[in-house]
Amino acid sequence: MLRKNRLFTPGPTPILPAAQTAMASFAMHHRTADFRALFSRVLSDLKQFIGTNNDVLVLTASGTGAMEGAVSNLISPGDKVLVLSAGKFGERWRDLAKAFGCEVEVISGPYGETFSLDEIRRKLTPEIRAVYVQATESSTGARHDVEGIAKVVRASGDDTLLVVDAITGLGTTHLNVDGWGIDVIIGGSQKALMIPPGLAYCAISERAWRRMETAKSPRYYFDFRKERKAAAKGESAFTPATSMFAALSTALDFVRQMGDGDMVAGREALVNNAELAAAMTRAGAQALGLKLFSPSSPSAALTAIKAPAGVNSGAIVKEFRESFAAVVANGQGEMKGKLFRIAHIGYYDYLDTIGILAALEQVLASVTATLVEYGAGVRGAQQVYAKSITQKSQPVGAR
Amino acid sequence: MLRKNRLFTPGPTPILPAAQTAMASFAMHHRTADFRALFSRVLSDLKQFIGTNNDVLVLTASGTGAMEGAVSNLISPGDKVLVLSAGKFGERWRDLAKAFGCEVEVISGPYGETFSLDEIRRKLTPEIRAVYVQATESSTGARHDVEGIAKVVRASGDDTLLVVDAITGLGTTHLNVDGWGIDVIIGGSQKALMIPPGLAYCAISERAWRRMETAKSPRYYFDFRKERKAAAKGESAFTPATSMFAALSTALDFVRQMGDGDMVAGREALVNNAELAAAMTRAGAQALGLKLFSPSSPSAALTAIKAPAGVNSGAIVKEFRESFAAVVANGQGEMKGKLFRIAHIGYYDYLDTIGILAALEQVLASVTATLVEYGAGVRGAQQVYAKSITQKSQPVGAR
Repeated sequence: MLRKNRLFTPGPTPILPAAQTAMASFAMHHRTADFRALFSRVLSDLKQFIGTNNDVLVLTASGTGAMEGAVSNLISPGDKVLVLSAGKFGERWRDLAKAFGCEVEVISGPYGETFSLDEIRRKLTPEIRAVYVQATESSTGARHDVEGIAKVVRASGDDTLLVVDAITGLGTTHLNVDGWGIDVIIGGSQKALMIPPGLAYCAISERAWRRMETAKSPRYYFDFRKERKAAAKGESAFTPATSMFAALSTALDFVRQMGDGDMVAGREALVNNAELAAAMTRAGAQALGLKLFSPSSPSAALTAIKAPAGVNSGAIVKEFRESFAAVVANGQGEMKGKLFRIAHIGYYDYLDTIGILAALEQVLASVTATLVEYGAGVRGAQQVYAKSITQKSQPVGAR
Repeated sequence: MLRKNRLFTPGPTPILPAAQTAMASFAMHHRTADFRALFSRVLSDLKQFIGTNNDVLVLTASGTGAMEGAVSNLISPGDKVLVLSAGKFGERWRDLAKAFGCEVEVISGPYGETFSLDEIRRKLTPEIRAVYVQATESSTGARHDVEGIAKVVRASGDDTLLVVDAITGLGTTHLNVDGWGIDVIIGGSQKALMIPPGLAYCAISERAWRRMETAKSPRYYFDFRKERKAAAKGESAFTPATSMFAALSTALDFVRQMGDGDMVAGREALVNNAELAAAMTRAGAQALGLKLFSPSSPSAALTAIKAPAGVNSGAIVKEFRESFAAVVANGQGEMKGKLFRIAHIGYYDYLDTIGILAALEQVLASVTATLVEYGAGVRGAQQVYAKSITQKSQPVGAR
């Protein structure tokens, strides 16, 4: 049967067709009035998308570049920081902070778990200059309690900054960035915003801007203050990935349309869409007798599913690709071979979600010796969907 | 009359149509065998394009990101470095080296000029750990004598690295990277390789790799050793701008086709094409009575032309844009308002070159009070072209 290439990975995610077209036909120079208008509109739209009044920056880099900036701009060598880590991306915060000479305190949980607020409170001594965490840990599918963590950090005063990697979290999680007092929140283009990798963005609080005046780590390409100054004039400090900006602008228009002209409503619809796809996928997987990896705090960004006993998850990933040209993700780090991950970030609808579950049934029949009841997973997902539309007047994200 | 948007800026440059299509339709995940094959092919093609046996890296960033990496990976705080600066991008080397705590010695020439090899020889004391220079200074259109500079640096021994920003130089200048002993050479996607901004690339000598073992500046996103390790497996250390890789691969195929299947011949044809366009443009501008800005060492990357007496070059740039939707560049830094720049980097042909010169005649008639002889600039360029085809059996780059 014909096989269409489809990404079910937690980034890159499926690309919005209108954004592909915008990207392909774009030919603006970045130091022109037309581009400055586009650039300023993108920053303003992103503020609404993130849900913040803080200044927003866009960097030509993958999300890790913005993560580096959130270290190099905020800390000085020898500063003490607290990293919350329960997966591969938590470990990235730790490695970044060490690379820039921080004294790093780590609260680490097992892969798939989240953190005890009490432990964070205990470790939050006055010398801690910043706390680094993920909103959702893409390597395990776990959602961290950013609201709870923010309460603890904010209670400790203004000398501790809270930095949240929400690269897979933005657009899949309800986050109250300013209300909770998040100082830096980071997103990436290839996630809920439905365009290819190549841009990172972040919103930065006044508390964080003040910190930059005294922070002494070297930085140049990711110098946030230089970018803020340029952004005030509708420009970036260095040559931006212009065609990606065209795509980003189109994607933000799409999100606004999802909210019938209101960006905030559109973002909520996008989050609800991911939550419904995730709930359908969890129900489908469980109906097939599979175990979820982060059952206590699953994110809507992705669903991590344990491979059945005796099966390497690599075989499942391979079979998805070979039979259906569908790319799902293997486990990362220590979880490689043990789980597989199906993403719900951004541009997925009912047919995608049902289709991948039906494909999962075929894949399981192929890689395991056990008998698979075809349609059981699909039915589980359909029941969740049916329940969701009886609760609301119309299906979420169905525009 | 209908006006097509056209870039005559020294980056971004006009985009290869096949690369636009490749970019728009690309949907590969970066951790798949297919992408690893693409990635490895791009690195191998880039080696031939650059003309080096050294390891090549591609970074998701603008060229400045790779420039930062060529500082942060090679020096330790307090190291003494020599920066050769005669324009805005030379100043960027100085600022970067300062940001990373170097003791910076600068040989600075006036904008538009180049450097005395004798002065470089005098300043090259044994403590100088690296020399930073541009191959072509995009802000002025001057070509620096990289071969001569390399001879001086290599004569001083293996403890001094030579780093060349060839972001506008690669594909517009004949460079013998390994033969001359260049330790790091840097390029950008939005230049001779005819795709949008968003990727930087560089080739790194064994001497430079050895230096990294002891260099102590903090780096993470631009950590060359981490990228080299990942590249050996056909991957990048962090999520790459995947669609840009698809475009880059297509552009490299195009360069190879320019050489009838041979990448080296294709690169030479691309350089010759830029040289012919530049020679035509210089002749055309001079036939109109205009003065060149860097007459002693003009690069083929771009032609910087002085605005006529009493005319702000901004008015010329504006008139090009408003009447012809053609974007030429104003002067940068201290040259703003004094000159305008027409680029020849990458995807330009005879019709583009003649067209922009004819438009220049219209623009001059519009912004100056003097009488312009229509066709005089065009004729000057045609004579250069006619001479070039009688010298060769067929026009350069005409495939």
